[in-house]
Amino acid sequence: MDVVSAADREGERDCVRACGRQRWVCRCCRDVLRASTPSGGGSRPGCQAWRWPRCMSLATSVRVPQRAPREAAPALAALGAGAAAAGAVCWWEQRELELGPLRHRWMDVRCDDAAKAVASGPGQFKHGLPTYSRDQVVKHTSKQSGGIWVVYNQGIYDITEFVENHPGGADRIMLAAGNTIQPFWNIYSQHKEEWVYETLEELRVGNLSAQDAAYFREHAPHYSDPYAKEPKRDPTLLVRSEQPFTAEPPLDILAQQMVTPTDLFYKRNHLPVPSPTETDPSAYKVTLSVEGQTNGISIALSDLKKLPKHSVMSAVQCGGNRRDEFSTVKQVKGGHWDAGAISNAVWSGALLIDVLESIGVSPSDPDIKHVEFIGLDKDPTTGVTYAASVPVEMALDPKSQVLLAYEMNDEELPRDHGFPLRAVVPGVVGARNVKWLSQIKFSHGECDSHWQQSDYKSFSPSVDWSNVDYSKAPAIQEMPVTSTVCSPLHGASIDASAQSVTVRGYAYSGGGRGIIRVDVSADGGKTWHDATLQTPPDQKRNQVYGWTLWEVTLPLPTQADAPGDIEIVCKAVDSQYNVQPETLDSIWNIRGLLNNSWHRITIHRGAATTS
Amino acid sequence: MDVVSAADREGERDCVRACGRQRWVCRCCRDVLRASTPSGGGSRPGCQAWRWPRCMSLATSVRVPQRAPREAAPALAALGAGAAAAGAVCWWEQRELELGPLRHRWMDVRCDDAAKAVASGPGQFKHGLPTYSRDQVVKHTSKQSGGIWVVYNQGIYDITEFVENHPGGADRIMLAAGNTIQPFWNIYSQHKEEWVYETLEELRVGNLSAQDAAYFREHAPHYSDPYAKEPKRDPTLLVRSEQPFTAEPPLDILAQQMVTPTDLFYKRNHLPVPSPTETDPSAYKVTLSVEGQTNGISIALSDLKKLPKHSVMSAVQCGGNRRDEFSTVKQVKGGHWDAGAISNAVWSGALLIDVLESIGVSPSDPDIKHVEFIGLDKDPTTGVTYAASVPVEMALDPKSQVLLAYEMNDEELPRDHGFPLRAVVPGVVGARNVKWLSQIKFSHGECDSHWQQSDYKSFSPSVDWSNVDYSKAPAIQEMPVTSTVCSPLHGASIDASAQSVTVRGYAYSGGGRGIIRVDVSADGGKTWHDATLQTPPDQKRNQVYGWTLWEVTLPLPTQADAPGDIEIVCKAVDSQYNVQPETLDSIWNIRGLLNNSWHRITIHRGAATTS
Repeated sequence: MDVVSAADREGERDCVRACGRQRWVCRCCRDVLRASTPSGGGSRPGCQAWRWPRCMSLATSVRVPQRAPREAAPALAALGAGAAAAGAVCWWEQRELELGPLRHRWMDVRCDDAAKAVASGPGQFKHGLPTYSRDQVVKHTSKQSGGIWVVYNQGIYDITEFVENHPGGADRIMLAAGNTIQPFWNIYSQHKEEWVYETLEELRVGNLSAQDAAYFREHAPHYSDPYAKEPKRDPTLLVRSEQPFTAEPPLDILAQQMVTPTDLFYKRNHLPVPSPTETDPSAYKVTLSVEGQTNGISIALSDLKKLPKHSVMSAVQCGGNRRDEFSTVKQVKGGHWDAGAISNAVWSGALLIDVLESIGVSPSDPDIKHVEFIGLDKDPTTGVTYAASVPVEMALDPKSQVLLAYEMNDEELPRDHGFPLRAVVPGVVGARNVKWLSQIKFSHGECDSHWQQSDYKSFSPSVDWSNVDYSKAPAIQEMPVTSTVCSPLHGASIDASAQSVTVRGYAYSGGGRGIIRVDVSADGGKTWHDATLQTPPDQKRNQVYGWTLWEVTLPLPTQADAPGDIEIVCKAVDSQYNVQPETLDSIWNIRGLLNNSWHRITIHRGAATTS
Repeated sequence: MDVVSAADREGERDCVRACGRQRWVCRCCRDVLRASTPSGGGSRPGCQAWRWPRCMSLATSVRVPQRAPREAAPALAALGAGAAAAGAVCWWEQRELELGPLRHRWMDVRCDDAAKAVASGPGQFKHGLPTYSRDQVVKHTSKQSGGIWVVYNQGIYDITEFVENHPGGADRIMLAAGNTIQPFWNIYSQHKEEWVYETLEELRVGNLSAQDAAYFREHAPHYSDPYAKEPKRDPTLLVRSEQPFTAEPPLDILAQQMVTPTDLFYKRNHLPVPSPTETDPSAYKVTLSVEGQTNGISIALSDLKKLPKHSVMSAVQCGGNRRDEFSTVKQVKGGHWDAGAISNAVWSGALLIDVLESIGVSPSDPDIKHVEFIGLDKDPTTGVTYAASVPVEMALDPKSQVLLAYEMNDEELPRDHGFPLRAVVPGVVGARNVKWLSQIKFSHGECDSHWQQSDYKSFSPSVDWSNVDYSKAPAIQEMPVTSTVCSPLHGASIDASAQSVTVRGYAYSGGGRGIIRVDVSADGGKTWHDATLQTPPDQKRNQVYGWTLWEVTLPLPTQADAPGDIEIVCKAVDSQYNVQPETLDSIWNIRGLLNNSWHRITIHRGAATTS
């Protein structure tokens, strides 16, 4: 694992996120500026000590020396104030939240160079490459026609080999075959990242004339903005993608309560949120079918609400939670996530088994092996709706408590979480908890959606995009045991004379496996301390679907024994005595899924801040 | 992890096990003599190259130099022939087995010095310690009476603090309070190990006169040999303890077939095997009770056999499988196991849920939370019988397929495996699969036996015997995901020019979690190869109770790139995507349970043997 080179690769392509409360953390390299906040920055307290995040100090685009000297502090102040810092023009925006006794402040900081790169994107004319005509490009739509080409500005790219590896699915990228991909990227803004641009440029085969490029631009398919009616979100959330919307709560807020406040619950949409017209509860219904038995029985939402209301506490976790850490080993493909892509709520609704009984349907045919949930959320370019499935045994087992949920934390579901109806499959990866539920299909085969067949699967670290075979791995259902340090935050400073530190976090295991122990260490694993556990209330063994919160006060090594930074590590054990793997390397996988390696944060000894 | 110092500690206390087939492996340090077999040893092929096992070369008791020079080969020949080797007098016994196309030969080798130490044991008169009278000793039977003392030969030991930590339970060791422990150790011969003697000597407080020691010896309680009627066992088994009997099959034989031949199935008895009189099938019955409902309904074995016969393939694994590896980190307490304390069989009998239905008992009272299985095997000193429990949900769930089994691999159970009736709880640690089943109790509380409450639990690596609290950890039920390289054997030699090696092994996860992938590496984890899996037939997802066999042909690094030894590593992934931890250190625990770290073996490049 070579952190420096990873940072080097990423330095140019990401921006810096800074937190006004004792730390500035770089979003890409997770390195930390020790400064509380720069002096001279207005109402905020003075700078204590600081350093450049690794990505920034190495990035050539911001033209700073390898390791900026301490005396460069005024430059940082300038950075904070939005002016030029060591050659980089930046902007920033401060956000603030009071939650309980704590006042949290963040600051988004973006290097203008990076911002400019993002805005301009690839496709500048490249000398030394052949120029092809528009007529030549439009013929390149298949292997048989000489390869599959796409256009971005003046760039022409051969995506023939890439199509099958497209993280969003082959079908979708093929919509742009022989044409420009720009309108699609405007909808799927997760492409607007440096690493995606780089991937594209690796496939470059030629140039278009400025005239032909303009023609493609003018004649590109036009989509009305499918994200125009997205709901408002809490500004506390750390936004990872605007379209589709994904965001996570700050970790220290996340672990403050057993039940995550609804507004702070992490959000992971795959597509635009369906419009209020489509989800009008007075007209809402879900259809249920059983392959070989019944076709499309419609059940009104109002009728579902007449069935007994069942509640279950269940954590929902994204398969990609903690993905960003993987990129310190080797670049993965997928949206950014720190460790906040998990939250815990109480879900209420009708049990799927009660619904089946109420309509007299019993999918007891042994050929019925899966139950598919289909959402209303639709790909604006293909019309394909989100869908996923779980094994039928799980859906029919009363212990699984599979719900058609219309409430979250005793209130109606918010739009981002599937209003007015969603599937909740306790103990199973978020991707199968389908939101805006419109169809339920009991079927012989597994769901054939992209998200079931070609995503949310993990492979050995030796599998890469050139040799991956998605049919070889099962779809992720129950997720493995994991835990995370949520407080203190990575990069926090503690008083130089502190003899102990109180550490808090969450732990979770899928499939109802409860957490039986969390070990926490402040000396790199030489000695471990058992944390005190707060387990979800009233859940039976192997039906523990909520997460576990934990807290421990760790004695710290003396400053003489361990000067400088202190690493805090946690690892959990579940009721099957499964444990977390020690390192990232051994579980690295191309899509950056299922990161359950030991969670490690670094805190700094130093003079205590006055804030 | 300091292998050398671990070997140093253990060198004096164990003996050397040698295998006639290309390797000699030391039982304690797992080091290997490369020799095929020593030259001049009769019909066996000539010596190729060799070295001392680490423990032997470091052990002062065998008086050999730190690293015996290559020229000392003739001394090894002498060792093989049973004569003096570098000052150590040894004996050996050769054993041979033909299985399929392979002829396996082992040789047990024991250093006479070690044998003498085992025979004489502790308790020699020690100068500088006070001498106490017999009258003083017999008064020391509790904390209140000045401490708890026991006697061994002329040694007096204060076990007051040790009692609660006695791996065999406080009750049992207290039988010897104020008296000699020798008669108990004669029955529980697992105490006759150097590390146990050392533990005892650490508690030494004084001497007895020779006269008083003789008095204790003569007046010690006498037990008729409870092991006199043990069954005959297959000589292929590697015996780990004679009383109670524990043994495992050689690994390369174990992984040759999906269903382990009954004779080779690993054996783990906790107590003497019940006598044929006690287990006469014509009179055999099991009693069933439900706390607060029914008392002792007896069901004859012959009636159980009239219920539908249900078969399930289930691997059974000891909680201590692979314990010996832990001692390379730090000494653990528990019987020796390499990686063969697991086997796979087809079990047949009556489903527990069918039995309940047949007698009209339904333990639906929500206060009933456990089901206890009680065996006929009895502690000869206390009269206590073996017992353990599982959560009642598991016992009553049809998916768990809990059996009262009277057949193993389509034949009646052999005596070592519980003839004529045992519990089989698929997916759960061996200790709950109670043999010689005589009582089933549905109860409010968990079984209060030693094996449920004070054994078969795991703790953090920082918990030691001074601070362990057994009430803080749950009893092991489902075991975590694991895998083992079974062939080649650790220490095997391959041809210097070999470009690949075929590796085979098993993988398993408890609780019905099937194995979805096994990664194998010949370069320390830099590159991984997916093994081809042979999964147990016809088992549904999350009801996969059999083990998985796997095989992969690994390309080997060239001799120029990796001269010398080659490490082969395997790690498995289960259907919950749980993985094995990388190292032993992070899961080390005082009793050496649940070792599911990556399995590592070393093979040697060298000239191929002619055998």
